[in-house]
Amino acid sequence: METINSRRTIRRYSQEDVSDDLLRELLSVAERTPTMGNLQLYSVVITRSPEMKKKIAPAHFNQPMVTEAPAVLTFCADYRRTTLWAAQRKGTPGYDNFLSFLNAATDALLYCQTFCNLAEERGLGTCFLGTTIYSPKALIEALELPRLVMPVATITLGWAAETPEQTDRLPLKSIIHNETYNDYTPERIDEFYTQKENLKENKDFVELNKKETLAQVYTDIRYTKKDNEAMSVGLLEALRQQGFL
Amino acid sequence: METINSRRTIRRYSQEDVSDDLLRELLSVAERTPTMGNLQLYSVVITRSPEMKKKIAPAHFNQPMVTEAPAVLTFCADYRRTTLWAAQRKGTPGYDNFLSFLNAATDALLYCQTFCNLAEERGLGTCFLGTTIYSPKALIEALELPRLVMPVATITLGWAAETPEQTDRLPLKSIIHNETYNDYTPERIDEFYTQKENLKENKDFVELNKKETLAQVYTDIRYTKKDNEAMSVGLLEALRQQGFL
Repeated sequence: METINSRRTIRRYSQEDVSDDLLRELLSVAERTPTMGNLQLYSVVITRSPEMKKKIAPAHFNQPMVTEAPAVLTFCADYRRTTLWAAQRKGTPGYDNFLSFLNAATDALLYCQTFCNLAEERGLGTCFLGTTIYSPKALIEALELPRLVMPVATITLGWAAETPEQTDRLPLKSIIHNETYNDYTPERIDEFYTQKENLKENKDFVELNKKETLAQVYTDIRYTKKDNEAMSVGLLEALRQQGFL
Repeated sequence: METINSRRTIRRYSQEDVSDDLLRELLSVAERTPTMGNLQLYSVVITRSPEMKKKIAPAHFNQPMVTEAPAVLTFCADYRRTTLWAAQRKGTPGYDNFLSFLNAATDALLYCQTFCNLAEERGLGTCFLGTTIYSPKALIEALELPRLVMPVATITLGWAAETPEQTDRLPLKSIIHNETYNDYTPERIDEFYTQKENLKENKDFVELNKKETLAQVYTDIRYTKKDNEAMSVGLLEALRQQGFL
């Protein structure tokens, strides 16, 4: 509980390596995370070599932590292993569909988050890269992911060489709903977002981006409709290519 | 680390309630989990009333823990709050697309798993219900989820009234890949699955289901191609209905 309370995303790492023993121990303990029918519908590709880091960096918009972190982990929704097993055991696997992708993605993401919680408990720093699903085809190619394997999350891992400020969070009441969804009125939106908007770092962020509001920085610059629609096409193509659609 | 090492899924709960204070504390601390652009693209619907539990139970195949647990939490991918905020602040939100669904689903699932890790650290028992994405339309209706909100995970929560055996896990080497995906040969499949297949409980499970192999129980009874394909149609329809496709 103390670990998560003081958590920060870490993007700069010391030169110290993360040992294979520690990495394996954490990946192994994280296997206790529940999965669909206990099938463990995930795989993890571990990137340590400088060549491979350089190869996957463009898919992550060349963010420097990809090449600088001692280890980069790509968590994949994986129905391939289960499918090969079933086929080898006179089963009739039928997992080349969208539900099966989401089942496997769920397994992979829950596993990933337990891994991160455990790693941070041991003092390691992590950075979750949302870019994994922006350019999945580039990662599929670089990591040689076959049919029924789809990358869904990437983290960079290492010992912190920075102590950034903690970022803000929305008040709890803005994210919970009792019994049924309590839709947001304009008054409640004001109540929930005003604190975030008034933080100095967010006001500076708006000014730096030459926008009028914080929301505009998100909608007009960082996560635009145009980009989201183009990347949705690529993501659906990748799902088709991997046999999930 | 000790908590996750001794973790079991808990399906039977004592009569003792989970206090609102404890539930809120855990949901609040879990907010430290990272999210896309720190937008927190999730909501949680808390089900406590017997009427609502009865209402959502069919979507979870009437598994008894839904009506018996003190609290049931439905974690939703939520781009609605962010979209309403942006619209109210002269932004131009463009999140009615598939990439945005997967971004929000990722946020919701990572948040859910940190919540589960924290709850179990406090001695609570949880059961993750994979059924959430099998009948999403029934949950959307029962929980009154509006456009750009999609249920992705449900857990039942309470104090354990059982201590089940721990279930088996695949060996670590079966789920990790160094640098690139190391595809599974028939020999490696045998190596990784034989131990699971030889467990007494799994042999009994095969016999009970009158099948020849464990894999057949999964492919022919529990997760069939026919069911997966039918549920994929429903899932895609629900995504369309909620504005994500």
